[in-house]
Amino acid sequence: MTVYKRKINYYETDRMGVTHHSNYVRFMEEARVDFLERQGCSYAALEEMGVISPVLSVSCEYKESTTFGDELEVAVSLVEYNGVKMKFEYRMTKENGTRQVAFATSEHCFLSREGRVLMVKRAYPELHAALGGLLEEAKSE
Amino acid sequence: MTVYKRKINYYETDRMGVTHHSNYVRFMEEARVDFLERQGCSYAALEEMGVISPVLSVSCEYKESTTFGDELEVAVSLVEYNGVKMKFEYRMTKENGTRQVAFATSEHCFLSREGRVLMVKRAYPELHAALGGLLEEAKSE
Amino acid sequence: MTVYKRKINYYETDRMGVTHHSNYVRFMEEARVDFLERQGCSYAALEEMGVISPVLSVSCEYKESTTFGDELEVAVSLVEYNGVKMKFEYRMTKENGTRQVAFATSEHCFLSREGRVLMVKRAYPELHAALGGLLEEAKSE
Amino acid sequence: MTVYKRKINYYETDRMGVTHHSNYVRFMEEARVDFLERQGCSYAALEEMGVISPVLSVSCEYKESTTFGDELEVAVSLVEYNGVKMKFEYRMTKENGTRQVAFATSEHCFLSREGRVLMVKRAYPELHAALGGLLEEAKSE
Repeated sequence: MTVYKRKINYYETDRMGVTHHSNYVRFMEEARVDFLERQGCSYAALEEMGVISPVLSVSCEYKESTTFGDELEVAVSLVEYNGVKMKFEYRMTKENGTRQVAFATSEHCFLSREGRVLMVKRAYPELHAALGGLLEEAKSE
Repeated sequence: MTVYKRKINYYETDRMGVTHHSNYVRFMEEARVDFLERQGCSYAALEEMGVISPVLSVSCEYKESTTFGDELEVAVSLVEYNGVKMKFEYRMTKENGTRQVAFATSEHCFLSREGRVLMVKRAYPELHAALGGLLEEAKSE
Repeated sequence: MTVYKRKINYYETDRMGVTHHSNYVRFMEEARVDFLERQGCSYAALEEMGVISPVLSVSCEYKESTTFGDELEVAVSLVEYNGVKMKFEYRMTKENGTRQVAFATSEHCFLSREGRVLMVKRAYPELHAALGGLLEEAKSE
Repeated sequence: MTVYKRKINYYETDRMGVTHHSNYVRFMEEARVDFLERQGCSYAALEEMGVISPVLSVSCEYKESTTFGDELEVAVSLVEYNGVKMKFEYRMTKENGTRQVAFATSEHCFLSREGRVLMVKRAYPELHAALGGLLEEAKSE
């Protein structure tokens, strides 16, 4: 499992002294983009192919706060994919995995540039195979 | 039920041409702050009393997109409160309530400035009564 | 002169306890959009006409901080316009104009959707007249 | 001269398809924090010593846009320091320095936690020496 790491920026903190909770939804996107890129499914390449992948839902449970200077670690896995939708899970930690920060999920579908729902299996068989492979990996862990 | 309205800003859109999904978590905060203030529980006043109210979890289901210039409407209700935690629901619409944009929830606890869990009933009986009243209202609707 | 007013959101503060300085560039955009709309030059309408107006430069001097709950007031004026570029000034205050918060400027050009520089005078004579009128007003104040 | 590099995130783009101009003020902060840390003046350590360093002004000239997936390079230098204020310059490029993206500046003072102006030379002689050294380096380049 790949782990995406990034430092918390000053502008991401709020006057409670901690990372504002809305930013974790952005960290999820960063980690998801990084994960797909490492797997050869660059999000920018998808967009060039005419595929956009909007977010259907997000959820995030906050366990411990982070703040400026902390390094956040985000372990991403693809936990569902059926050719039409996919779902990711995100385990966020700090201090080298020793402290749990948040647990989050996101669901996505696939649309053509014109906004029609894409059947990935038929329209993009290589992408379909790649995502199917990622799902198998996640299950076997 | 009060409805919080606000226009989508240009800087809140992304290159898909729509409001970036992370911003809805910020709109939830804006609407919650506005809701509490209308009910006489100003969030700034709470902080001055030494009460902070961190977010325990958020969830958001996206139904239709918005973009720059749209007016987003957010109907907030307090749906759970037990003296230790509270939960809000947010029904987001556009075009005068005729189109559903998103359905979201958030859960919160109460902490003292030193980070200890607050029993609101004992420590802040007036706040406790106010939140209890809001819950009754929501139930009777 | 019209003044754009808006409350500072919690998520716009940082751990210094004040509005993060980067947000003022966003407040400038909000105020500029509002100003143009009040003058009948809706930014969304411009985009529909095929005109985009990228930012060439911004500057901002910070005089006093604001924080969550403060109402920021932004007085906008168009101070330069020559058919190719325009420049705005922003005087930001709080507490009903009694305290200076910031003084800022921004410069913009006009591009077609394809990215070519637009001669507004020839391509959009009505827009040209409207902007020219705003400039006259600002000068006569 | 150290160069800070970071990828542009999806959520940093706007519906013009490019990085929203306000984000460059945030990239400046990231690069400045990184620069000071490399020089042994960690911003977090400064805050722990009781020194805060608010922004007095920023300016940014935009030359070419960036977008999702681009790597932005920010070369930072300290160009003024007199014991009371300091000024940084930021040369932002993409594609390994071959294309200019933006040129920016920021000015900062030093305050105690209580908000009083700090004379760094007297109060923090080591910090004073470090900043003086950085200034000399920048001049000799």
